[in-house]
Amino acid sequence: MSIASLNEPLNLARDMADRAGSIAMRYFSAGVDSTQKSDNSPVTVADLEIETTLRNMIAERFPEHGILGEEYESKNPDARYVWVLDPIDGTHCFAAGFPLFGSLIALLDEGRPVLGIIDAPAMDKRWIGIVGQSTTLNGEPVHTRSCASLDEAWITSSSPFMFEAGSQRQRYENLQTSSSRRPVFSGNCVAYGLLASGKLDIVCEADLGVHDFMALIPVIEGGGGSVTDWQGAPLTMQSDGLVLASGDKTLHSKALERLSGQPI
Amino acid sequence: MSIASLNEPLNLARDMADRAGSIAMRYFSAGVDSTQKSDNSPVTVADLEIETTLRNMIAERFPEHGILGEEYESKNPDARYVWVLDPIDGTHCFAAGFPLFGSLIALLDEGRPVLGIIDAPAMDKRWIGIVGQSTTLNGEPVHTRSCASLDEAWITSSSPFMFEAGSQRQRYENLQTSSSRRPVFSGNCVAYGLLASGKLDIVCEADLGVHDFMALIPVIEGGGGSVTDWQGAPLTMQSDGLVLASGDKTLHSKALERLSGQPI
Repeated sequence: MSIASLNEPLNLARDMADRAGSIAMRYFSAGVDSTQKSDNSPVTVADLEIETTLRNMIAERFPEHGILGEEYESKNPDARYVWVLDPIDGTHCFAAGFPLFGSLIALLDEGRPVLGIIDAPAMDKRWIGIVGQSTTLNGEPVHTRSCASLDEAWITSSSPFMFEAGSQRQRYENLQTSSSRRPVFSGNCVAYGLLASGKLDIVCEADLGVHDFMALIPVIEGGGGSVTDWQGAPLTMQSDGLVLASGDKTLHSKALERLSGQPI
Repeated sequence: MSIASLNEPLNLARDMADRAGSIAMRYFSAGVDSTQKSDNSPVTVADLEIETTLRNMIAERFPEHGILGEEYESKNPDARYVWVLDPIDGTHCFAAGFPLFGSLIALLDEGRPVLGIIDAPAMDKRWIGIVGQSTTLNGEPVHTRSCASLDEAWITSSSPFMFEAGSQRQRYENLQTSSSRRPVFSGNCVAYGLLASGKLDIVCEADLGVHDFMALIPVIEGGGGSVTDWQGAPLTMQSDGLVLASGDKTLHSKALERLSGQPI
């Protein structure tokens, strides 16, 4: 699929983000009763309503494309073009009234993400990444900032509790404590958009699924940043869920050293 | 000062919140270069500009009132009426592009907060608490929600790193682990507003100054919630900076037990 021919998928993806944001904000503004059990909570109702809507929009326009969503079974996962959807990334924040949540929409071409959208409707921010192009925030080009020093880096993660006790947590702490700045949490997908916009230097996370990270890749890379697993390998459908994103490529190398678990 | 005579201070406080929000959003939208050193960073510039502006507004309207601000020296701290100001609460989030920051404005009458505003301009939310009245969010009354079970409680803190290693951290963890829900972080003053609005159940924090908590008290109490130190005592100018807020009074008692450090 050439860049020119991404126009149609891009138009669809924008429409999908509009619809997802509209549904999410309806639940967010009305108030989600998060005291309900998670098996049928309004959070899940919002998730399901968004994913169903987006799946129908894809099926109508590109019936031959595959779809991987967080909530339902995969459709045509072996198709050349596969959409990867996370209807609401950051459900904890969504339920608590924090605006740091968003919908993630990615299009893969033979497993490689060529289009990614991070849409944060409660912040009125939409990042669009297209392979080979500059990432935009609400239509304006953005780029990461320079920060080659771990000591000065702003490091963020969705939660300090997302890391497994033992080696994984130790490796994270090895990175986190190398900065003199207090880490910020609860950013979810929005943190990656803010990294692409040069507001943050590192996002370090664990336990992510493909629906969590595929849309982020074109956004970060199109902003000039790097995103890999904790070994420095590209993120793929087979990745282990450990993700490191950096705005500065020199910083990324240093962060990978800290995550290696080896003495520095 | 009777409730009726709070009208003039309230009008001033609203004007102050308008001005504070306008200045904060100018820096937030333009982007704060947080890689600068903190001694003269744009965050501090925004803080200082807001506090100076608010101090001038108070001095013009109520020259005899005292003022305690985060950034400058106290003025007439022994006056009957004292304003307590935090120009930007949540500077980490402010600098990182997270909308979870706000300006805090309180008016004390002989040490007791009779008026409090939490203004979160990037979220377009303003909570106003007035002693003896219902708290409002953007002009509409709000109230906390019922949640008498620690296991089901949503617990939040600005950072897991705000607690001192040792007994203080142990007491916090004793509370935090009593809930089966993953805690959410980085809410800053906004978390207390969301608690008053029934979106969260507990905010547990440490290392707070009077400028951090005085404005919260009328907001939380006017929403039906409780806010005390970790011993259950009212917050005063002499408090030790440990703060517990709960939406449900039964929950508050249970949380205090967990924070007591005694076996339950």
